[in-house]
Amino acid sequence: MTLQIQPVILCGGAGTRLWPESRGTRAKQFLPLTGGDSLFRQTVARTPAGEHFLPPVILCGEGHLATVREQMGAQEAALLVEPMPRNTAAAIALAVAQADADTLLLVMPSDHVIADVPAFHAAIARAARLAQQDWLVTFGITPEHPETGFGYIASGDALGEDGFAVARFVEKPPLADAEAMLAAGGYNWNAGIFLFRAGRMREAMLTHCRPIFEAADKAVAAGMRDGDALHADAIEFGKAPSDSIDYAVMERDDRVAVVPVAMGWSDLGSWQAVHALAACDEIGNATQGDVFLHDSHGNLIRAGGKRVSVIGMEGIAVIVDGDDILVVPLTRCQDVRAAAKARE
Amino acid sequence: MTLQIQPVILCGGAGTRLWPESRGTRAKQFLPLTGGDSLFRQTVARTPAGEHFLPPVILCGEGHLATVREQMGAQEAALLVEPMPRNTAAAIALAVAQADADTLLLVMPSDHVIADVPAFHAAIARAARLAQQDWLVTFGITPEHPETGFGYIASGDALGEDGFAVARFVEKPPLADAEAMLAAGGYNWNAGIFLFRAGRMREAMLTHCRPIFEAADKAVAAGMRDGDALHADAIEFGKAPSDSIDYAVMERDDRVAVVPVAMGWSDLGSWQAVHALAACDEIGNATQGDVFLHDSHGNLIRAGGKRVSVIGMEGIAVIVDGDDILVVPLTRCQDVRAAAKARE
Repeated sequence: MTLQIQPVILCGGAGTRLWPESRGTRAKQFLPLTGGDSLFRQTVARTPAGEHFLPPVILCGEGHLATVREQMGAQEAALLVEPMPRNTAAAIALAVAQADADTLLLVMPSDHVIADVPAFHAAIARAARLAQQDWLVTFGITPEHPETGFGYIASGDALGEDGFAVARFVEKPPLADAEAMLAAGGYNWNAGIFLFRAGRMREAMLTHCRPIFEAADKAVAAGMRDGDALHADAIEFGKAPSDSIDYAVMERDDRVAVVPVAMGWSDLGSWQAVHALAACDEIGNATQGDVFLHDSHGNLIRAGGKRVSVIGMEGIAVIVDGDDILVVPLTRCQDVRAAAKARE
Repeated sequence: MTLQIQPVILCGGAGTRLWPESRGTRAKQFLPLTGGDSLFRQTVARTPAGEHFLPPVILCGEGHLATVREQMGAQEAALLVEPMPRNTAAAIALAVAQADADTLLLVMPSDHVIADVPAFHAAIARAARLAQQDWLVTFGITPEHPETGFGYIASGDALGEDGFAVARFVEKPPLADAEAMLAAGGYNWNAGIFLFRAGRMREAMLTHCRPIFEAADKAVAAGMRDGDALHADAIEFGKAPSDSIDYAVMERDDRVAVVPVAMGWSDLGSWQAVHALAACDEIGNATQGDVFLHDSHGNLIRAGGKRVSVIGMEGIAVIVDGDDILVVPLTRCQDVRAAAKARE
């Protein structure tokens, strides 16, 4: 099979849970949160244009366009600019609207970490076979602990050796339910990575969320081209209801498959997740920059060019960025949005 | 009695436990830690030159001389400059060496808070009567809790209504001993405030710590006058052993008195003590500057011109000064010295 897959990279997020480093034009996906390249550049590099993949389609907001271009450099890409945020269903609809019906689209968030890229590629190959049989395919991450912050996907009938029909989607569960699913097996985390034939998704959207697809379709048709970027028309796109692809399509369609994969995945969804992935000293401290620690362990300290001194603290994050200093227990990092909202 | 008392203000401390705000030429005593005036200026204002007090003698290091002059402004004072730190016995010896024998010297640290100045003045009057009877008088603070960070003074025989002979000095005690002393009564905190006739202290020093007094005496004689300041001679002063006035004199002499007083005293010895004195909101947070708090209580946050956001924290200090950020539990504030030492 020499079919090339079209990566579609979703860059629209604000990443407010990683405030203060993530904000404005320097949103989470554009930061080198694991050291080295930004999460966005790591995402682009995971599906390099060549034998298996076409150059990517990148969906981003106006505010991030310059950063995307800067981080892409000379690499070929087609940029699709969302005039305003309208959630993932409308964003994906833009990519579907401008694709040939038989193109396989691999939709990926731009702010995740995947440590085992060969495992990802093997899963893509399985998913591609299912997508050619007109399954809407979602990637299911093998769960490692009873996480309550993700949705789960229950596997149904096996589809050969490539995956499973989806029995049902489970909303972010209470801990007891998460523990039960982990014990039972046959449940995977919903990572928001999808693979499907463009024409198949078009039909699904016209069935399940026609107003979203029609708004996106007209926004592409009336869009303004600017070099490598197509700016979707704001008036048309603004008519699209805001909904996630999960709610708008995946949970409503009756031919949805899941391809389970263990690939060292993390959504880096909070400073706690950044700490979990970071290189730590022998007592669990992960530091960046000029940090003095005394009798402290299990902390994430990012000095951001300043000098941070921490005494007698356990399990906290101290994040410095410009004139902003955030102090929060790692277990409370979901609440960082409150500070981001108050400050930005 | 129209006798005027000579205030002697000890300004030699570095205040490293209040790092990072206290450092270098901006040591603790020169900071407005309670809002308004600096602790040093509050100390000077407590014994104003006039009917009862002479203009003060101020003992400070070379590094603090400019700050002392700046904060004194046009107020009259005699500055005695220590060429190097030699602890309180040698510093007080400098003041004794240049005083008339019959002058009453009131020695005070420059970095304490006294809320009830009339109570202090009443205690000074009692102490002056004892000093004129050649007692070396120390002020004993009525203890409010079983503090383990201070030394205690045990009262012996009453000296009329003015005070008590000191039975013994108690080193910083373990908690059980502190609780026992609080329950027993007759114990007061040693605040490092003293009143004595200069000639009486001269004799005591010649008896108990002659090398210290002789070094200080020669350092004054060979000192260099510079306007309002007398710079003690470095070679002579450097010969003085480094010891506290408590160890060198008070604990050895047999005519030492204590004047108990309750006057809203605090040594502001740590960020925890600063928090205890600060105006707090109804859930115990004391903030200075641009601070955002979410679900946090009992904290001391001083933003120092930056923007500090704190989520889900209890009982910590976050102190920002320039490029330095300190994070420490209020109960661990004694360890701030470790950071100050590493950073300065």
